[in-house]
Amino acid sequence: MIIVMKQNSSDEQINEVILRIEKLGYKAHLSRGVERTIIGVIGHEDKSDIQSFASLDSVEAVIPILKPFKLASREMHHEDTVIDIDGVKIGDKCITVIAGPCSVESKDQITRIAHVVKDTGARMLRGGAYKPRTSPYAFQGLEEEGLRYLVEAKQETGLKIVTEIVAIGDTDLLNKYADMIQIGARNCQNYALLKAVGQTGKPILLKRGMSTTIKEFIQAAEYILSGGNPNVVLCERGVRTFEESTRNTLDLSAVALIKEWSHLPVIVDPSHSTGIRELVIPMSRSAVAAGADGLIIEVHDHPEEAFSDGPQSLKPDQFKECIKEVAKIAEAMGRRMI
Amino acid sequence: MIIVMKQNSSDEQINEVILRIEKLGYKAHLSRGVERTIIGVIGHEDKSDIQSFASLDSVEAVIPILKPFKLASREMHHEDTVIDIDGVKIGDKCITVIAGPCSVESKDQITRIAHVVKDTGARMLRGGAYKPRTSPYAFQGLEEEGLRYLVEAKQETGLKIVTEIVAIGDTDLLNKYADMIQIGARNCQNYALLKAVGQTGKPILLKRGMSTTIKEFIQAAEYILSGGNPNVVLCERGVRTFEESTRNTLDLSAVALIKEWSHLPVIVDPSHSTGIRELVIPMSRSAVAAGADGLIIEVHDHPEEAFSDGPQSLKPDQFKECIKEVAKIAEAMGRRMI
Amino acid sequence: MIIVMKQNSSDEQINEVILRIEKLGYKAHLSRGVERTIIGVIGHEDKSDIQSFASLDSVEAVIPILKPFKLASREMHHEDTVIDIDGVKIGDKCITVIAGPCSVESKDQITRIAHVVKDTGARMLRGGAYKPRTSPYAFQGLEEEGLRYLVEAKQETGLKIVTEIVAIGDTDLLNKYADMIQIGARNCQNYALLKAVGQTGKPILLKRGMSTTIKEFIQAAEYILSGGNPNVVLCERGVRTFEESTRNTLDLSAVALIKEWSHLPVIVDPSHSTGIRELVIPMSRSAVAAGADGLIIEVHDHPEEAFSDGPQSLKPDQFKECIKEVAKIAEAMGRRMI
Amino acid sequence: MIIVMKQNSSDEQINEVILRIEKLGYKAHLSRGVERTIIGVIGHEDKSDIQSFASLDSVEAVIPILKPFKLASREMHHEDTVIDIDGVKIGDKCITVIAGPCSVESKDQITRIAHVVKDTGARMLRGGAYKPRTSPYAFQGLEEEGLRYLVEAKQETGLKIVTEIVAIGDTDLLNKYADMIQIGARNCQNYALLKAVGQTGKPILLKRGMSTTIKEFIQAAEYILSGGNPNVVLCERGVRTFEESTRNTLDLSAVALIKEWSHLPVIVDPSHSTGIRELVIPMSRSAVAAGADGLIIEVHDHPEEAFSDGPQSLKPDQFKECIKEVAKIAEAMGRRMI
Repeated sequence: MIIVMKQNSSDEQINEVILRIEKLGYKAHLSRGVERTIIGVIGHEDKSDIQSFASLDSVEAVIPILKPFKLASREMHHEDTVIDIDGVKIGDKCITVIAGPCSVESKDQITRIAHVVKDTGARMLRGGAYKPRTSPYAFQGLEEEGLRYLVEAKQETGLKIVTEIVAIGDTDLLNKYADMIQIGARNCQNYALLKAVGQTGKPILLKRGMSTTIKEFIQAAEYILSGGNPNVVLCERGVRTFEESTRNTLDLSAVALIKEWSHLPVIVDPSHSTGIRELVIPMSRSAVAAGADGLIIEVHDHPEEAFSDGPQSLKPDQFKECIKEVAKIAEAMGRRMI
Repeated sequence: MIIVMKQNSSDEQINEVILRIEKLGYKAHLSRGVERTIIGVIGHEDKSDIQSFASLDSVEAVIPILKPFKLASREMHHEDTVIDIDGVKIGDKCITVIAGPCSVESKDQITRIAHVVKDTGARMLRGGAYKPRTSPYAFQGLEEEGLRYLVEAKQETGLKIVTEIVAIGDTDLLNKYADMIQIGARNCQNYALLKAVGQTGKPILLKRGMSTTIKEFIQAAEYILSGGNPNVVLCERGVRTFEESTRNTLDLSAVALIKEWSHLPVIVDPSHSTGIRELVIPMSRSAVAAGADGLIIEVHDHPEEAFSDGPQSLKPDQFKECIKEVAKIAEAMGRRMI
Repeated sequence: MIIVMKQNSSDEQINEVILRIEKLGYKAHLSRGVERTIIGVIGHEDKSDIQSFASLDSVEAVIPILKPFKLASREMHHEDTVIDIDGVKIGDKCITVIAGPCSVESKDQITRIAHVVKDTGARMLRGGAYKPRTSPYAFQGLEEEGLRYLVEAKQETGLKIVTEIVAIGDTDLLNKYADMIQIGARNCQNYALLKAVGQTGKPILLKRGMSTTIKEFIQAAEYILSGGNPNVVLCERGVRTFEESTRNTLDLSAVALIKEWSHLPVIVDPSHSTGIRELVIPMSRSAVAAGADGLIIEVHDHPEEAFSDGPQSLKPDQFKECIKEVAKIAEAMGRRMI
Repeated sequence: MIIVMKQNSSDEQINEVILRIEKLGYKAHLSRGVERTIIGVIGHEDKSDIQSFASLDSVEAVIPILKPFKLASREMHHEDTVIDIDGVKIGDKCITVIAGPCSVESKDQITRIAHVVKDTGARMLRGGAYKPRTSPYAFQGLEEEGLRYLVEAKQETGLKIVTEIVAIGDTDLLNKYADMIQIGARNCQNYALLKAVGQTGKPILLKRGMSTTIKEFIQAAEYILSGGNPNVVLCERGVRTFEESTRNTLDLSAVALIKEWSHLPVIVDPSHSTGIRELVIPMSRSAVAAGADGLIIEVHDHPEEAFSDGPQSLKPDQFKECIKEVAKIAEAMGRRMI
């Protein structure tokens, strides 16, 4: 890290900082400029040390040099990581499609839609049994009953299932029923929950928070990795901006940048990010062209009856069209759909 | 709610919508305009119904009319609510000051600072025992040991204590040790945690999430209220914007607007919102002038030794100056400090 | 538009609003709900009328129904518009590539780079002669001298040229030298400048402002169209968000949404939006997959000597790679590069 | 500035950077860390040099050390600057209130309102003759006729007038009629216009752009100062965020931070920032408590007839209440209203 001293700081103040640096086990490297003196701090930097220096009256700024993650970084692990979800892989040549309704609404609904998405080319089934809803009066999910319906749909179709966890106490239950556990956007920085799923060996689908920076997003993954669970797939799902015509603003440069900085697979959610059915197909194509390893798409055969997120759900024929168009882009990228 | 039909929608499509409205128990009110037909839906609106209509191909938009909260709204409860934290009140004529370090670091540290803030005029002590940190490698808090130190500081000074909960499993522990439980910004929309603290009768300090809208913030409070716990104090602590010179952007218009829309007390955190020691005093004055019922301020006697958030912590003499300046504004507002 | 009356508004207040509606030449359509009364206003809505109603004490909200643009809307003009820049077309089957340095630095520099981009497949040359710089002490452009160098590069290579206007007084000069005039992001809502270029018949490249919403962006185009100049190409170049690892956040859903709402061509700037050389290729692919009609890319043969924007400029071999990869996506989209 | 080399950069690459530093007339200061080598660059830094280094393949990042403005900085000019607008001062002990309608609508309207705001305590009159409107079909202002009405209102009341410039060509006209020229939010980074008003000696009211950072805002002022016009008053008027219940998000910490960094006076616009009449009074109080030197408030005696911005305009009795409440805060701040 680099410490920038305030203009006109005294030799005494500079020495005080150098002593503190050495006391913490670092080496100090002094550089007197025309308008500012800066002090390089040599050694493995630590966030709390940065704040400790920034708290001194004589210090103008402390600038970190290293990226704030380790296990998730490509510097530590050069090759792309491939996550294996009981046979379905995310992060290899194949573009993996996860599809299904926003919520599990009934045994019939989830099974019916599972067949549709299976037949169209999805390899995993999504569907929420526990729903984090903005209003306490909205449908909160079928809970364990919903999990059981998911498992039945899996048994019928062979699709692996991914479903969201919203409370630490449900970790065992989710670990038992799901093939992959989803951490939703609102819980992306719920560190207690990240630690809990880090204790399992289960593949985790970690969605970016609505205003989580790319660095913080990778740090959230680092919580899971450092807990001992290496099976993390990141999911870009749009961030909050001033734009009001789309539900969120899909940040596809994040996909490309995460692929530069991290070895973890990245998928994209074109449904929640846009909130508009008509944009799901173009954003699915775009995501794959940006380098995404997969897609998670909301599909419903009767969106107008859906308990949640109907307006952004593709109908079965639209989903078919989507897969067809994405397949062309995948091919152009030297990848394949199955 | 109001349904806007797409341009050139057919009579058949319009009738389909009207039938659906009536099937759901509402009355429909048709209005044919020059370029669009709109249909008013008369009855208590429900979020999932809105989505159900928005999913129809013939519908361009569904516009809700009512604010999405009930128990927290001033329409339901006209007078200001005053929350009683074992004798300390928030929401009456008095500006209540909560102060203390970011983290509980040791028994000596928290007791020492508790005396300082008590003597200066604070009525409650803050200090984190469980810390949600961006990096898994940063100090995570002293946990239950920290809670015990807080209680000892309380016994010595008489200050009531507020401290953060980060996991549902700690609810009983926090309920036992704390006078008020804080929900941090990152957990503002962690609905499972909101439901858990809604089951206690304990006063809750709910901090606004980094990108939580004012409406969503009040809906988060609604989760606690609808769970049966009416003791909620809202805390504005800055939101995320493009601005990079301050840690967050303090949104004081939110304070004034929440006071219009809701009967719940609102306090302001000038420390986390700005991240800059020099801005804490002006923003404290500003918050009280906006109508805030209290302040939560980070104070540390040795910020350069603080385990977290040193750069934004006031030193004891700065805190004294802060209280002195805020007192003048409080008086100008017809309020008082104690 | 729809007028929502405040709860408990009196019959007198409701009548006052109806009279005002009728006085303005609209028809009123009353709808009494359980908690609110709403009044539909039938007729072509006008923004100032909306504000006139919103100013009344008895009115809670006024909700516009129609999109706030006409000439630019697809409702008015169903087919895609193709802009012809002296033989180079934007908006047809072809993906048009505009490339070149950020600034014109010398006659040699612009001619040299013009040859490079021409040989690689670009059809138009970019290069700023007037530069809007954040600091008054930064290089402000070669001005008319720069325009002349652009014309010489055009004469040598046959590339059409696009360059930025920053002041109304330069309109005639730009009209004379340039094949297409660019309005930069900072001037997207400089309406006086939009009106000035609306008076010319010259093709205009209108870049989205840093925090211009999609609707406002199209309204900015409407200024040019309503001035009598139908030749507008929109350019998505990233918006400002909380994200700090990229220069801006590229909003590719805007591309797809503008194509739904408007008949105007849309191109994408992957250089300014990301600010990172490594992201230019993936975002170029992504843009074309989203449906963009072209790309505007910064290319410099010695970026470390560039007067501006070196870090995001592609080197000639990277540009070659970019075109190669984009061509594959174009083909997958049923489009071609030339 | 500080140059951070990429991990594993070779001695040759490091030497190349050092040579370039020395060639540009700086001194280099090498510091080899455990994971990164950093090179301090000693001398007055320049933005284009920063980009020149950042363009090198071997460089990971270039970090500027100094704030990017000079004439506007408090380091250059320690004491508060007081701007004198023909006898009315902004920046001294007095809180200066500027008030009036959004637009000049007629001679009668502006004169009538001028009397109201004069009698209530305003010292300057606002009113737009040239209006930058989002829609080309909205009222664009009375132009020179409006300027003449402003002057007549000034002659009747003695109020100094401030009005907006939207095009460079109007500079002479504005210089002749206005006592202070306003640069609106949309033109905050219209550098050609800033240069034009920098040529006059007229006091300038520079409004912050919707997504202009604090540093960029001060740099915009630097354009005017460096043009030779030292009479700049900055105006915080809210920034664009995800929040949708207020028109913008008023950033009062910007006021306090600008006062730390710059010697220029700062005023606040509580009308445009919130867009809600009920929030104007609390935000006016808050602004003064944050340290603002003045307020610019929209007042209209018949807001429902206003051509623009009626919903956020105070009525005369509300304005009276506002001044009364602000006066109390001013007194608590040791300041006065006249």
